[in-house]
Amino acid sequence: MAGNKQVRVAGRPPGIPQAEHFEIVDSDMPAIGAGQILVRNLFLSVEPAMRGWLVDKSNYSQPIEIGSVMRALAVGEVIESRAPGFASGDRLMGWFGWQEFAAAAPDTVIRKVDDTDLSPSLALGVLGLNGVTALLGLEKVGRPVAGDTVVVSTAAGSVGSAVGQIAKLLGCRTVGIAGGAEKVAICRDEFGYDVAIDYRTPGLEQALAAACPGGANVYFDNTAGAISDAVYRQLAVYARIVACGTASVASWDPIPTGPRVERIIMTRRATMGGFVVLDHMAEFNAASGRLAQWVREGKLRYREEIVDGIERCPGAIADLYNGLNLGKRLIRLV
Amino acid sequence: MAGNKQVRVAGRPPGIPQAEHFEIVDSDMPAIGAGQILVRNLFLSVEPAMRGWLVDKSNYSQPIEIGSVMRALAVGEVIESRAPGFASGDRLMGWFGWQEFAAAAPDTVIRKVDDTDLSPSLALGVLGLNGVTALLGLEKVGRPVAGDTVVVSTAAGSVGSAVGQIAKLLGCRTVGIAGGAEKVAICRDEFGYDVAIDYRTPGLEQALAAACPGGANVYFDNTAGAISDAVYRQLAVYARIVACGTASVASWDPIPTGPRVERIIMTRRATMGGFVVLDHMAEFNAASGRLAQWVREGKLRYREEIVDGIERCPGAIADLYNGLNLGKRLIRLV
Repeated sequence: MAGNKQVRVAGRPPGIPQAEHFEIVDSDMPAIGAGQILVRNLFLSVEPAMRGWLVDKSNYSQPIEIGSVMRALAVGEVIESRAPGFASGDRLMGWFGWQEFAAAAPDTVIRKVDDTDLSPSLALGVLGLNGVTALLGLEKVGRPVAGDTVVVSTAAGSVGSAVGQIAKLLGCRTVGIAGGAEKVAICRDEFGYDVAIDYRTPGLEQALAAACPGGANVYFDNTAGAISDAVYRQLAVYARIVACGTASVASWDPIPTGPRVERIIMTRRATMGGFVVLDHMAEFNAASGRLAQWVREGKLRYREEIVDGIERCPGAIADLYNGLNLGKRLIRLV
Repeated sequence: MAGNKQVRVAGRPPGIPQAEHFEIVDSDMPAIGAGQILVRNLFLSVEPAMRGWLVDKSNYSQPIEIGSVMRALAVGEVIESRAPGFASGDRLMGWFGWQEFAAAAPDTVIRKVDDTDLSPSLALGVLGLNGVTALLGLEKVGRPVAGDTVVVSTAAGSVGSAVGQIAKLLGCRTVGIAGGAEKVAICRDEFGYDVAIDYRTPGLEQALAAACPGGANVYFDNTAGAISDAVYRQLAVYARIVACGTASVASWDPIPTGPRVERIIMTRRATMGGFVVLDHMAEFNAASGRLAQWVREGKLRYREEIVDGIERCPGAIADLYNGLNLGKRLIRLV
């Protein structure tokens, strides 16, 4: 019987998870019990949020135990089913972990991937956690109205690029912030931002002021840090901030300092709201369906960076944070 | 003909307004034109918010011009009317300024003070800007539900004391933060807080953790600064922060630094919302009426600190910020 390569957590990362915090283990092919399914993973997902999942502290999810398989979303194919409603050959997206095979309970499945006209890999990116985060975070916390100016940080990223395009579809002006000339060009040419700003060149604040003459009505924040400080100063009255990620903060222990936000929040009567998509899984399928329709109509573009082999998992989270990736990072197994 | 003593703005305060930023001027008794009313002020209000009104910068209200009469709410009596709907003897609460007499347009009137069973001074405090701020800020941004733990800073102050009592009336547990043993005792004995904490004694964080075993569901923030930093660390999931005042921050120029909030906001899926009561003046009368009913029923207590003479105005704002006052500060003129 074939084995099952797994990526297990070898140590708790103090900041951004590095390759050394994981180990690849050759395990036995799992046997499934009654009510379970055996899934062969096709694509494994890599998320910036994995950093938070690995923290051993009060957080929005249970910390992952040292020694266990790394928690991850994956797209896989059912190769054996002892659970009603699932059959061999079904393609599923769910919490199958960084491993080749998963003996899974039905409640780890998020959805069946039955969009046969679209690549199954999309179920992990623009139609998955990233796209759904963009759509629901924007709508629920950002509450954009046509004519609003929407500012997005990590504007070329998997979440940010979807936010910018969806805001545009909703009739907003979009301002993207990204790092480096290549990403800025992609923001403008591929994701349709009205203005794209390179935060690495001097003058971020002036560029933002010029890009938001009436202020920023919505700020979809994937970075926190100095980028956010600059955006806060451009907030319009009644602005909404979606606190969705903190990519630019290398470590939260100890908590870094920055300019206090209370007075801007108060005087602009702004709202800063945290968004974690895992709170909204009941709406996942419907949101994914809306995104798929936009993809089919050519209105929602995406980039994927697919690399082959489970050996690429351990260093993959750190890659997301070094700013080098250009698209949804996926590990292809089959 | 009698004169009209006025308190005019003599200079723009860099931080908290001090007596030197005002001058008392003997002016002529104003003459009213068609459509105006002549109001004799009985009580002048002193607000922490006056600091913000005096700032020469982007803010929620037009900055007050140097040389003009200090913007202030007052309760006064109509002594001459050339405006329909107003008659001599009417008691009014409105934007009549720090002066003895005001030639006022009807749109400066916020409401007629016809609760003859209650002191007219209450129209400036528990039934005025302070009480209405407490009620609407708590309901609109704090959105408490019965059973919630509601934490209040400046818990013994004019706004905070009303927040604590209203939260209690709505079925919440209340935790008040105040400075000094006397205020803490008042919080407990007079305003009914379940727990009152003196932020000046060591161990604020431990005291908060003990007072909020399930976390703080609502934080009504009148201080910002280190007090808020300690409360943020106790926020429950889905907590709501009402950013209503920044009493503990001596100057916002330059913006002081503090621990970044983005990660707490995100992981707790908290919401921080700015509240300025001036956005909600259409609801003022109804809110004031609800507060008056609670006062009549003995369910809503208040403290007033009334001092006599317009000469007490210039130093009155700084008094609010030195933490020595115990109740709504009013200047009685008549």
